[in-house]
Parts: sequence; C-alpha cells; structure tokens
Amino acid sequence: MLIESLKSFLDKGQVLSGMELKDRYHHIWKMEESLQAVALVMPRNTEELSKIMKTCYAHGQKVVIHGGLTNLVGGTETHKDELVISMEKMNKIQSVDLMSRTMTVEAGLILQDIQEQAKVHDLLFPLNFGAKGTAQIGGIISTNAGGLRVLRYGVTRHQILGLEVVTADGQIISSMKKIIKDNSAYDIKQLFIGSEGTLGIVSRAVLKLSSLPKSRVSAFVGFNEYAKVVDFLKFMDGGLAGTLSGFELIWQESFIAMTSPPALVKAPLGHDYRYYVLVESMGSKQERDQALMQDLLEEALEKKLILDGTIAQSQADLDWFWTIREDVHVLVSQCNNDQHFDISLPINLIGDTLEKIVVELKLMEEVEKVFVFGHVADGNIHLIIGKRVQSDALIHRINEIIYAPLKDIGGSVSAEHGIGLHKKAYLHYCRSEAEISMMRMIKKTMDPKNLLNRGKVVDG
Amino acid sequence: MLIESLKSFLDKGQVLSGMELKDRYHHIWKMEESLQAVALVMPRNTEELSKIMKTCYAHGQKVVIHGGLTNLVGGTETHKDELVISMEKMNKIQSVDLMSRTMTVEAGLILQDIQEQAKVHDLLFPLNFGAKGTAQIGGIISTNAGGLRVLRYGVTRHQILGLEVVTADGQIISSMKKIIKDNSAYDIKQLFIGSEGTLGIVSRAVLKLSSLPKSRVSAFVGFNEYAKVVDFLKFMDGGLAGTLSGFELIWQESFIAMTSPPALVKAPLGHDYRYYVLVESMGSKQERDQALMQDLLEEALEKKLILDGTIAQSQADLDWFWTIREDVHVLVSQCNNDQHFDISLPINLIGDTLEKIVVELKLMEEVEKVFVFGHVADGNIHLIIGKRVQSDALIHRINEIIYAPLKDIGGSVSAEHGIGLHKKAYLHYCRSEAEISMMRMIKKTMDPKNLLNRGKVVDG
Repeated sequence: MLIESLKSFLDKGQVLSGMELKDRYHHIWKMEESLQAVALVMPRNTEELSKIMKTCYAHGQKVVIHGGLTNLVGGTETHKDELVISMEKMNKIQSVDLMSRTMTVEAGLILQDIQEQAKVHDLLFPLNFGAKGTAQIGGIISTNAGGLRVLRYGVTRHQILGLEVVTADGQIISSMKKIIKDNSAYDIKQLFIGSEGTLGIVSRAVLKLSSLPKSRVSAFVGFNEYAKVVDFLKFMDGGLAGTLSGFELIWQESFIAMTSPPALVKAPLGHDYRYYVLVESMGSKQERDQALMQDLLEEALEKKLILDGTIAQSQADLDWFWTIREDVHVLVSQCNNDQHFDISLPINLIGDTLEKIVVELKLMEEVEKVFVFGHVADGNIHLIIGKRVQSDALIHRINEIIYAPLKDIGGSVSAEHGIGLHKKAYLHYCRSEAEISMMRMIKKTMDPKNLLNRGKVVDG
Repeated sequence: MLIESLKSFLDKGQVLSGMELKDRYHHIWKMEESLQAVALVMPRNTEELSKIMKTCYAHGQKVVIHGGLTNLVGGTETHKDELVISMEKMNKIQSVDLMSRTMTVEAGLILQDIQEQAKVHDLLFPLNFGAKGTAQIGGIISTNAGGLRVLRYGVTRHQILGLEVVTADGQIISSMKKIIKDNSAYDIKQLFIGSEGTLGIVSRAVLKLSSLPKSRVSAFVGFNEYAKVVDFLKFMDGGLAGTLSGFELIWQESFIAMTSPPALVKAPLGHDYRYYVLVESMGSKQERDQALMQDLLEEALEKKLILDGTIAQSQADLDWFWTIREDVHVLVSQCNNDQHFDISLPINLIGDTLEKIVVELKLMEEVEKVFVFGHVADGNIHLIIGKRVQSDALIHRINEIIYAPLKDIGGSVSAEHGIGLHKKAYLHYCRSEAEISMMRMIKKTMDPKNLLNRGKVVDG
C-alpha cells in the first residue's frame, strides 16, 4: 500500500523493489551484499521528496537516505523494513553566481562535479577528500565533512550559505540565501549540518565559492620529535600568513608503506625520520610563493625546526607528493581485516597520545599493521589497523584502546565521518550525559515518529 | 521569596534590588533611565548561575541576561517583572593554551581584554568591532557578532571551539573542548550561538586564536560605479590570496561627513568619488606586503578598476585611515533622532538596492541625513538615518522602506546585531513561516516555561 501510494506520483523507474534491488545497489559501500529494503525511491526534485516523506509519515514508514555511501561509519546501513531514498537523480547545478561567488546545487550532486564546475569559472570549492568522485554534497553537508583544506577554508559548515531540507513530516524548510552574514533569529540550518540525516533530509544548498588560487607550492619535511612538528606549524602559519592551505602529518611506518612497493611512488625524502609533514601554500604568484616557501624552509632548517625538506618543482612533483598522501588505498591493501579511525584531539597531545596507543596496539598478537597519518593542524588523526583475525570482540577491544584515552583529554571519537551506527557505543567518550540527552530531546522534537535514519547517531 | 532564595546562596553584594538598582545600571545602553527589574544578580561562576536558574525555574521567574548591552536591537530590554542576570563578575581568562592556540574564558569577559591578552602571546583573536571596549564575549557569542574581519576569519561562530551553557532549568551543558573538528553527533553549541540568550545562557567558552599577523597594509581607493567595487574585490581577493583582511565600503555622503569638521580627521582622497573602499591586508612581512599592495593598486588603476588610491605609509596613517571608518560616532552626532540599520544582501545587488532605498528616503520630508557604509565583502551594509522628527509611525515607515526590498532578493534584516525586540516585526522579510514555526518549536523544547529573554527574537 505504501509502494502503491508512492507509485501514484512517481514514475515507474523511480521506485525499485523486490528483485529490482538485486545487484543494483550495495548494502554498504564496497560490500558485496545486495540491498535489502522495502523499496528504493529516487526523487527528482524537492517537491517529490516532500511528497515521499508525507507518504512515509502517514504510513509510519522508516527511511534511510542514501547519498554516495562513503561515510564508513554505517550511517547508511539499511534494514529490510526500511525505505531507501536515494538522492542520485537530484544531481543538478541550478546556478553559478559569479558576482556573489555562490553555487546553487541539488543534494545528489557529486563533489568532484562541483569542484570542476567552480574551476571553469575561475573559482574554488575548497572541500576536498579521497571520496570526492563518489560523495554527494547532501551527504557531505549531513556529515559536516572535513578533508584536506580545513586549515585554510574550514569544514563544510563554513561553506554553506543557504540550505533547504525536508522534514520527517514532509515540510520543506527552505532558506536558499546567498548572503554571508545572517543573524535573523536562530540559524536553523546549523541543526541539519552534521546531524547525519536524522533530523531532516538535505535537498538543496547554496555553496560559498572562493577565489581560485593561482599558485600551489608543496614540500615534504622530516622530523624526529613531535614537539618540533607543532613549532613548525606555528612557524609556517605565521610565515605563510593566510596562504597556508595544507599541513598533513604522516608517521614513519605509514610513510614507508606509502613510498615502497607495492606502492607505485618513491619517497621524496629518506625513510629514516619519525614524522613527515606535507605542507602546502596556495597563493597568487607561483614564483614569489615558491621563493617564500624556500626562504621559510631554509630558516626552519637553520633554526633546527626541521631535519630535511624538499619542495615540489613541477606539476609532476605536486602530483607525486599528493599521491603519496591521498592514496590511502595503498595502506588499506596491506591490511587484513582493516579497521579505520578518525579521531580528534588537542594538537599538543597528539604525539604522546598516539605513541601510547600505537605501543599498546603493537603489543597485541592479533595486530599486524598500524598506519597513522592525519590533518595535524586540525587535530585530526586517522589510523588504519590491519589484523591477523577478525571478530566483534577484537574490533571492540581495539576501539576501546583508541577511544578511551580521548575522554580525559577532550578529544572526539569522530572528527570527520560522523557517528552513524559504528561509533554510537563510544559517543560517551566525547559527549556528556547532559549533551546526549539534549540531543535525544532535539531528535524527538524534530522527528517525533523516529522515521529518519532510526537508530543512527542517537536514539529517538 | 525568590530574592530570599537567591540570597541564601549568593553574597549580599551579588543581589541588588529596589533602590540599589537606581543609577547603577541603565535600562538600555547609553540611555538615561534607571533599570526596572525584580532584582539584579551577579553570579561569580557557572555553579552559581546554575543555582540561580534552578531557583528561577522553580519560581517561574523570567530572566533577562545582561552582558555589555551593546546589541542595539533591544535584546536586553528589561521589564519590571523580570530578573536581571548580569555576567559582569564572570570576567576571567581561565587559561591560554599556546600549543592548541586557544583561550578559555568566562562569559563576562570584555572583547578588548581578550584581544590584548592574545596579543601578549603573539596571537590574534580576530573579532573586532566598535563596541570592543564594552561588549562581553558571552553576548558576542549569543548574537554571533561579526565586525571588521569576517572576510578573512569568519563570524563569531567560527571562533568558538568549546562552549558551556546553563539551560532554563539550570542544567549545565558543558563541552569545553579545544579541538577544531568534532563530528560526534549533533553540534549542540551551534544552537546557542546566535540565539540571543533565548535558549540558554552562555557561561564559558573556548576561543580559537590565530597567528598574529606581522604586517598590516591599508589603502583607500575611489570609484564612481558600484560594479567596479565588486570587480576590485575579486581582483584583490585573488591578488592578495589569503592575506586580504578588510574591505570596507563607504558611500560618498558618509565619507564626506567622516572627513570634514566636526570630524577631527581629514580625507586621504578627494571628496568627489561616489564610493570609497578601505582595503586591508595582514601578512608576515611589512615591506613585501606593502610592495604587493602597491603593485596591485597600480594594476587596478591601469585596468581602470579604480579611479584613485592611497596607501598608508606609517602607523600614524593606519590609525588615521581606520579612525575614519571606525568612528561611527561622528555620523551619529550629525543625526537627530538617529535610526540604525544592519542589513545583509547579495553583494551584486548592493549598489542598485541601496541607491533605490536612499532615493526613497531622501524624498521624505522628515529625513535629514542618510549615511551608508559597510562590510561590503560580507554583503553587510549599515545605514544611519537622521530625522527632523521622531515617532513610532515614522520609525516603522523607514523600517519598511529598508526591510521590505530584502524579501525578494534573499537578504536579511539583521546581518550582525540580531533580532532582539526591535526587528521581530520584520523577521518575516527574511524568514519563512515554516522557518519561524520551527524556531518556535525549538524555543518551546529548550525553554518550556518561556523564562529566558521572553518575547525576544521569537515567541515561545
């Protein structure tokens, strides 16, 4: 009866169910199981999405919203009694405003398409991360994604000027403004950004674009002490003044794996440093900005902040340097039963905390590999762990080793990817009971029938 | 009985009532009336604030929170049946973390004290505006204040890493983290930032600090066409890369008033341009950055983007240039019955929209002066209007002239100052009914007895 109702206003090709779901869609990104769901519907515009939610609300039908399915925390896992709303047909750029420097987009648009379209107009959409060819902007907004340029441009929250959402009962809450400052009462959109589709469904957005930098300079540098990494960050942030756009830290074991076979790229610096930083500036004149980077690295060498450094001299070098950092798949391919982490902690405590964690993990017989790297200027560290065996108990034990220390130091179990299903049990390591009960109160207010991504993030 | 309860845990000097309120406190900033209130209490810490709210909740006592009282929208107006909570005794810096580059502060701390303390540590707290010597950080957070450097560093929302609030029923919701990225479930603090004390009372915060720029270069330039202002903004944003930190637009009539007696400063450019821009870069090396500004202005002159320009050559020049822009009092002093505006609109539409508004205002017999200036790169324009007479009907008529055109172009009746009492009737020009009813639902959920700043912003 629900499906009949949906088919009354959607075309045949927009509603898939039963055998039509087989092979079409994977349950979770990269996994081989077929999608199990009541049906999958694909709205073509906000009005259809609103009608779908009105129908679901009337039927008490639970829904899961599917974007690019790249969240990695089980945020889009679907049960067979849930309806999937896939945003893939809402994938249009509605306008680019060159004067206001904004782009108006539908939620199903893929990040890379946004980046490329901005570039055509000599503008930059600064969000950038590995899954850019798959991740959809609606999901990116719903998880407040971060990535490689947060240091300079901020997280997703800072790129969203206007937002339109559809609520659990099918209302359209639209505020598609292009303005940068708006203190006219509560900034409702902030509630939907980062709440992983549990409070409303993002349908459209107005994105803020930035000037397209005309120069890009990158360098790899080596350290043996973590404290020097922090000193170097402060030194470069001051010296590059506003043009610093990347500061990525790679631990030795990861660096070796990223630059040795089977990895296809070689190392731009020797393998004998404990820490490697890939630092990047984006400015307006290549020659001048390259000279500034050179001057600063020489000064840093003299001051003994860094032990060695090498600057990319060509576009080929830039591609080489960034492939090392971005091709995380090289690490994953060396891990059996890989387990991924995306934690946040105060920058000054990263060195010691991670050292203790790695030592503890390496003492475990089950653990084969521990790769550590991250956006250190944002306090955001990623770990990829390879294990000889796999079990729920082992996953939990490793989670505890990594998440428990975050409580006392004011860290977070999720810097970028969100909570979804997989991190829900560990939320108490970074949120107080008072906070979690306020979240539940908000969930109950916004989604009284608990229809949107039920059971994810917090209980309704 | 309420006052007895409050006195049971507060010292005598922390509770003022009756004649003690006389002369001590003004009703609204700069106004001469005495404060009318049930009492005024001054908590010394979060626990006392929590106890005060528990007491008020039990008694159903309405409260108004007083910070520096500089909001200008009636956000702190108090009725005689309300209790005032003044944050002035919670004015301590609790810590400065030089590695994480954060400052942990109490809500009653004054902005200028924060700026100065950051500078001592070679760091920058980038928020800056005219009322910095009076405005308290709790109020700044509650109104999501903007100011002169939003272009580069963002609004208040972007400077807040951790926040602690006390809710209507006296609960302490504390998340005093120093981390930059935290996607662990709903980002609750976003609800309290900019909600003008109607959802909770900010008690403490962790502020993000930035590198203290080592150079500052400012220039005044002149234009006769608004479109060229926008082209010049794009040109400078690209050319200065990440170092552009200010781009203030002043309309001719304002510029003349700001640089002619009774103003104490003279004009750095002739009085014959229709628009003046004060552009600023903050970088790392004075000489190099000054040369870059010089090169860019010369190029802009050649390209006919600008008609004339002059660069500050000394600290005295910098002070001179910025006094022109910051000393808004010079304009106010030339206005009888002054009426202030703080609107936001898409950057491309500012020239035409403001021209129409000014023409319409000038046709009014009651209007003597119309001063226009603003943070044009943020789309944020201020107007100060002087009138021969004063009446509520006239205030409303002028409000309508300025606010009504914002509806169709996606503007805002408040870019920076908030809604308070004075703009509540005009909120519908920038928020839909669906948005306002969602705001009311949130207010009801967070403050079920409608005790916090009742009647301000939205109805509970």
